[in-house]
Amino acid sequence: MSVTDELIQANESYASSFSKGDLSAPPAKKTIVLTCMDARLIPSRFLGLEEGDAHVIRNAGGRAQDALRSIVVSQRLLGTDELLVIHHTECGMLSFKNEDLHAKIKEDLDADASDIDFLPFSDLEQSVRDDVEFLKDSPLVPDDVSVRGFVYDVKSGKVTEVK
Amino acid sequence: MSVTDELIQANESYASSFSKGDLSAPPAKKTIVLTCMDARLIPSRFLGLEEGDAHVIRNAGGRAQDALRSIVVSQRLLGTDELLVIHHTECGMLSFKNEDLHAKIKEDLDADASDIDFLPFSDLEQSVRDDVEFLKDSPLVPDDVSVRGFVYDVKSGKVTEVK
Repeated sequence: MSVTDELIQANESYASSFSKGDLSAPPAKKTIVLTCMDARLIPSRFLGLEEGDAHVIRNAGGRAQDALRSIVVSQRLLGTDELLVIHHTECGMLSFKNEDLHAKIKEDLDADASDIDFLPFSDLEQSVRDDVEFLKDSPLVPDDVSVRGFVYDVKSGKVTEVK
Repeated sequence: MSVTDELIQANESYASSFSKGDLSAPPAKKTIVLTCMDARLIPSRFLGLEEGDAHVIRNAGGRAQDALRSIVVSQRLLGTDELLVIHHTECGMLSFKNEDLHAKIKEDLDADASDIDFLPFSDLEQSVRDDVEFLKDSPLVPDDVSVRGFVYDVKSGKVTEVK
């Protein structure tokens, strides 16, 4: 059985005891969590979120530039006014440079991705500061939105604020 | 107390009993789940995922174009070879057109976002088919990767494949 089929089979158990069918779209906690796609991170668990609580945006690195479209939709149409940017230790985005990945794509797939900035970074805490600043400076994010940055430690499960 | 502080406080409980500190970055199930940021969706719960199992990419709508950077990082650097695209009923992306949101941004923020395609859609199942096709057609996604599309029903918690 493929993993895809295994996950869809696991969904039957969730659906059979589902009791959250009355929730509406606007997040109850009016909050966005922006974090990495990394498999070790389960934001609902490490932040105590229930269905309906918060928008969760995830991409490679938890990068803000890549999330701006979603953040604007969330804030303008669904009323969120707090935002947590959470990057993490041992992130894959610390392990390569754009030119490395461009070369690997050429080698593996014979494809040209040289126009794509994969948004890797070399300093974890600075990447958080950069993304918080990017959002605070964006004309598309209102000044009265709370934007704070954090690091999740994959060894301890602990979230620490980056100042 | 802000919601942000409340979530960070909730993290203390998670970290205090954390036992997954030995996981490595490559997802154990070699799978990517691409889905919407919607607060009602908790992919780890509705698919039975544990820490370390799968990359989870989330954005407004669960759109593939917006996720391509992350998907390439996952497949080329972290070895994933299955991908589930999961959109959902009652998605906010069904409720507006680009020009509506461009006008609202102008009115609310006096900012110009007319160059941004917010990737709304008018037909839920077709949006899933479009995103599956986009990925299957992309020269950056290898032909031997499994890409399948699904709809999550927010009333029932059930995931159904879109053919």
